[in-house]
Amino acid sequence: MKDVFKIEPRLLKGFRDFSPEEQKLRQGMMTLVQSVFERFGFLPLSTPALEYKEILTNKYGDEEKLVYGFVDHGGREVALRYDLTVPLARFVAMNMGKLSLPFRRYQIAPVWRAENTQAGRRREFFQCDIDIVGTESYLADAEVMACLCGALKNLGISDFELNINDRKLFNVFFNEFNGTPEQVVSVIRAIDKLDKIGESGVTEYLSGKGISETGMEQVREYLSLKNEANIFSAIEKKYKEGGRLVESMSKLMSAVMNLGVKPENIKFNPFIARGLDYYTGVVFEIVLKGNANFGSIAGGGRYDSLVDQFSNKPLAAVGGSIGLDRIFEILESQGKLKAPVLVDCLVFNLDKTLEKEYMQLASEIRSFGVGCEFYLQTEKIDKQFKYAEAKNARYAVICGTEEFESGCVKLKDLNTREEKVVNRHDLGFSLGGLLKL
Amino acid sequence: MKDVFKIEPRLLKGFRDFSPEEQKLRQGMMTLVQSVFERFGFLPLSTPALEYKEILTNKYGDEEKLVYGFVDHGGREVALRYDLTVPLARFVAMNMGKLSLPFRRYQIAPVWRAENTQAGRRREFFQCDIDIVGTESYLADAEVMACLCGALKNLGISDFELNINDRKLFNVFFNEFNGTPEQVVSVIRAIDKLDKIGESGVTEYLSGKGISETGMEQVREYLSLKNEANIFSAIEKKYKEGGRLVESMSKLMSAVMNLGVKPENIKFNPFIARGLDYYTGVVFEIVLKGNANFGSIAGGGRYDSLVDQFSNKPLAAVGGSIGLDRIFEILESQGKLKAPVLVDCLVFNLDKTLEKEYMQLASEIRSFGVGCEFYLQTEKIDKQFKYAEAKNARYAVICGTEEFESGCVKLKDLNTREEKVVNRHDLGFSLGGLLKL
Repeated sequence: MKDVFKIEPRLLKGFRDFSPEEQKLRQGMMTLVQSVFERFGFLPLSTPALEYKEILTNKYGDEEKLVYGFVDHGGREVALRYDLTVPLARFVAMNMGKLSLPFRRYQIAPVWRAENTQAGRRREFFQCDIDIVGTESYLADAEVMACLCGALKNLGISDFELNINDRKLFNVFFNEFNGTPEQVVSVIRAIDKLDKIGESGVTEYLSGKGISETGMEQVREYLSLKNEANIFSAIEKKYKEGGRLVESMSKLMSAVMNLGVKPENIKFNPFIARGLDYYTGVVFEIVLKGNANFGSIAGGGRYDSLVDQFSNKPLAAVGGSIGLDRIFEILESQGKLKAPVLVDCLVFNLDKTLEKEYMQLASEIRSFGVGCEFYLQTEKIDKQFKYAEAKNARYAVICGTEEFESGCVKLKDLNTREEKVVNRHDLGFSLGGLLKL
Repeated sequence: MKDVFKIEPRLLKGFRDFSPEEQKLRQGMMTLVQSVFERFGFLPLSTPALEYKEILTNKYGDEEKLVYGFVDHGGREVALRYDLTVPLARFVAMNMGKLSLPFRRYQIAPVWRAENTQAGRRREFFQCDIDIVGTESYLADAEVMACLCGALKNLGISDFELNINDRKLFNVFFNEFNGTPEQVVSVIRAIDKLDKIGESGVTEYLSGKGISETGMEQVREYLSLKNEANIFSAIEKKYKEGGRLVESMSKLMSAVMNLGVKPENIKFNPFIARGLDYYTGVVFEIVLKGNANFGSIAGGGRYDSLVDQFSNKPLAAVGGSIGLDRIFEILESQGKLKAPVLVDCLVFNLDKTLEKEYMQLASEIRSFGVGCEFYLQTEKIDKQFKYAEAKNARYAVICGTEEFESGCVKLKDLNTREEKVVNRHDLGFSLGGLLKL
């Protein structure tokens, strides 16, 4: 009825499929993360993939150019969500009054960014976000960080480092800084890059910005915090208002520990700013120890002025996010992901006249909660064993005329190659037990 | 550092948020569906939200205009997926040779369509798809239908009707039909609408299409199948090749029953065509009995020429989909969704000096897998009870100075209002037991 075109099957740059082997592992990771989020009392929220473009405007600083925007069928300017935080702020502003505060929510969902794919970045990836809206309490900051660390631990990742800073430290520093507001922004951006580009890189980055020699001297002094044995007392000494900041940071770090994070996983790091414009206070990044080249696997911070942009009623908020797909790709590249069992058992199809029996066997097995596929055509047994192997099936259920007539089936463990004869009516129960469901 | 704009917080037409109360129920529904899909041996696949636009072109007939397409940052024509079937065909064509056939996969994910929102249609909704690629076996058709029915049953929906047809029946009919190919397409479209617009509506729809009087007579005769007591024998009598079709349809319906669907839930319906261009054989739709006005809640069919459009190696395929969000909205509108428990327990914050104790209580409770929130500020107890109620929390953990000193806490069941005193060190264990985790 219609011309048929041969179209080359291909993926867009920066996008990927997850095959069943991969997706099964990835879904398992999402479940592990989700269960920790729920244990910490976070509740699921779902917001659309598409928003009015203006909702996402003036939130992401330099990165705004990465937002996927377009004009829809009704002539509206729309955009794919860039993160899960701005849609949350939009939701809170729209539902103010209906929500009990503090509002704790999680969302595990994809976001889209027109990233440079040469740097190995994806244009679609899942984020696992938690946020607490409606409280200035430092305990909320601690909860967010402890929860994300707990989720990483649940994923089997224990060699991480939670780097914490407070953007207010930059205020303390810039109260004494000799430069224009634009220069202040440049200096913060440069400091944030210290880990990647080193001290000389920072100096070079700032060289064209017209910063005075006094200003550069102050920057170098700030960078020298890196070499201090006791960084807290150095800050107290160097900056007039440093004492208050050190006190609140110590309190926060203790709270994170009280909530279950080990001291060796926590580090104060005055060189973290995080790129996004909306952060106002505490910021943090989690990296894998000794694998800083992978970048951060989680991060977040306090953003007390974001909801304010959609509402007359400002609401303090703090949140963070795990880069699930980044972690997946790190584990994948390190060969740490094991081939999962794809199907619990396969009912072989050896005799066309027994088709009905195979269907009923499958139904019965499934009613015990066991994953079961039956082979859809009568084929040689070798071919069916090969298929079972490719599917990494755990058990084969084998029933020819002989077994059928005796009311039994052969149950073969495809790992150990052991075979046993089971009464047909005990099959579902036996399999359920063997698989410990 | 940046101008702050007040932006009106609003949602795009046809899109919605799911609040925690709603999303918790919706996630529960997804889990129920997913578990049945896995029991039937379907494996998860994940494909991107965005595809090259040409991948989606010439697949959806009239509905192609609903595809969200745009030009991306690199000047590529891209589109948001309209369904999960075409991306599956693209995936299979790209990975031909690596996949063991038949390939069974499921995908639970959103799709986007620029639908007319006045008809109550959403522009973003989740579909739950299963497909079996690489076999022509009628057992695959039966598996897909039985699995979808099983998933509905697992959602607590038992009053559904699975309507089955075979597009080949139209071939049988049109072998004898007196008209042009364009008229054939119009007639199929009109027949597909019979349930909605009635026989007179069909005649009216076809009146402008220049169909001959003989042709219209043939259409009326086809429509009169509706009134036959034994529709199978009527088809055998009316159409030369009707016998073969009736035989294969009976066999298919028996297989669906063997796989666990009750006879009263299955119906042969010769008036179903389904809109999408890619179907080639069996097609089906599931509706709620007595609620046909809600439209179908699931549907699918065989599409043996879709993979072919991306590959030189044709592969037969069959699949179907549950409209999870449509079901959610039906249950919602019928008031059948109960308010879920949002958090298992809330640790009250009654004394600022006990902050550390509250954090440690929360950590301990969480380590038993119990969902636990602690109140982040010291507040009056009434306010915290109100908050617990709004969160539909099950238990309150109350610990003031007195309890702390005696090494105990009060555990209050917020449903029954019963209160008991529990040794501090037994708290997590007690709660885990009470909540039967």
